[in-house]
Order: sequence, then structure tokens, then C-alpha cells
Amino acid sequence: MKIYFAGSIRGGRDDAVLYRQIIALLMEYGDVLTEHVGDASLTRTGEDGPSDETIYERDMAWLAEADAVIAEVTTPSHGVGYEVARAEVLGKPVLCLHRRTAGRWLSAMLAGNPALWCETYDSVEELRPILERFLHRPDLYLLKKLGRE
Amino acid sequence: MKIYFAGSIRGGRDDAVLYRQIIALLMEYGDVLTEHVGDASLTRTGEDGPSDETIYERDMAWLAEADAVIAEVTTPSHGVGYEVARAEVLGKPVLCLHRRTAGRWLSAMLAGNPALWCETYDSVEELRPILERFLHRPDLYLLKKLGRE
Repeated sequence: MKIYFAGSIRGGRDDAVLYRQIIALLMEYGDVLTEHVGDASLTRTGEDGPSDETIYERDMAWLAEADAVIAEVTTPSHGVGYEVARAEVLGKPVLCLHRRTAGRWLSAMLAGNPALWCETYDSVEELRPILERFLHRPDLYLLKKLGRE
Repeated sequence: MKIYFAGSIRGGRDDAVLYRQIIALLMEYGDVLTEHVGDASLTRTGEDGPSDETIYERDMAWLAEADAVIAEVTTPSHGVGYEVARAEVLGKPVLCLHRRTAGRWLSAMLAGNPALWCETYDSVEELRPILERFLHRPDLYLLKKLGRE
């Protein structure tokens, strides 16, 4: 299974350690195409090396081949919001993970969106059963979700 | 002309006054469907009243009827990133306005995206000629942009 993990880069790297922990969990279930998102040496200025155009094209290609998309959506990020929307339009199953953090409210574009699964959590320890349920059969997860509407 | 203006709400309201100024400018050119984004009484918790589902459906309906989309993309926001992607997929002309602000880098999903117009600016006074050029014929602006690729 190919997994696209989305987390904030230029929006802010406050959660970089958490992203790395989530990616380590995800690697038990499949290939994480975007493993660099959890790299502690990746700073807010973005990635040194590839141009913005190259990053955009590479990420859109990865998104197109992903079987499931998991976005950590606590730190606000244009890129993550963009990726979630493109994944949704491509018909990918999308799970949004949001921490209960003071002063952070999830956008209505995600929280009020019937095509997305949004889960709230406090610590990475709570994520295993959520990820397991989602990644076991993300297609079924998506169908079940859409069937509810 | 119907204009969809996108700015951060739950990502942070630091730029709310600026949004109001931009919206006032945009109202010289057409109807701004999302005038509430510049409302100073609208806090980070979002809008009191409508549910997230109602906000999502209303905003997607406005996006579908918009002739042009203008996003202020300095304050990171999942919602704005999401709206930009959905607008792009709908074939809407999208202008992203980004301020030169210390510690803020625009996502590669926007800056490296050939389907979007991204403009950098310092103050609202610089925006009139940019908006004028974009709103005069947003369709031509988009075609010209796509023709370059």
C-alpha cells in the first residue's frame, strides 16, 4: 500500500517530531511516499534543492499514485489544505488527524466536509487503532463514509 | 462579476484588517461573495451560528458560482489551501497574494503550481494595479498563464 502523508512544512515545523512518529507508524502498513515531511532537518524555508515547480509536480505525482492519504492538520498549512482537496477530487480516501490544542480550530472546509474522515486525538499513542481501522481497507472506509451522506 | 475572496479564519485572524481592505478594493470591481472574511468581529473560532457542514456547503456553492478567486496567502490556513485547490479544479482563475513577511514562505503547492497566479506585495497600496490586471479579464489571464506552460 502506498501512503501519502501530509504535514506542514512552510506553514511551520512545530510538529515535525510528531510527523516523524506518525510516519514511523505508517511504515508498518505500507510505503510512505512523503517520508521527508518528518525529517527534522527539513526547515520552514522548505526543501533545499528542488525548485517549487519540481516539488509541486513530484507531490502531485505521488498523490495520484497513493492508495490512501493521511494529513496531520493541527498546524495550519496552505500546502496540506491544498493536498487534501486534490486528494478528495482524485477520489482518494483521506484521513485528517487533529490534535486538541489550545487556540487551534480545524477549518470548516475539512471539519464540515462529508468526503473526509476527521479524527481528533491527544497523543500519538491513540493513533494506532485509528490508523489500523483506516488503513485496513481505506476503500471500504471511504465507501462507508460516503454511504452515510 | 462575482468574486470569491479567501483569507484565513481558523488558521489565525492576524490579517483580518488587511482582508477588509482588500475586500473593499474588490467591491469596486464586482460582488464579493465572501465579504464576512474581512469582518473584524469574526474570530478564530470561526463563525458563530452555522455548523461546519453548512459553512462548507455554502462556501463550495459560492466557489462554483464565482468568476474569479482571490486568496490572501500570507497567514497559513488549511481552508484557504483547500479552496485554492477546489477553485483550480473547477477551472476558475485564481490569484494568490503573498506579503513579504519575515518567517513566512509560500507553500510549493501554490508557488510552484503552473495553474495559479502568485503575486508578492508589501502593502495594500500596491494591490490596485495587480487586481485591475487580473479582474479586467480573469479568463484571459488564466488562458495566458496556461498558454505559457
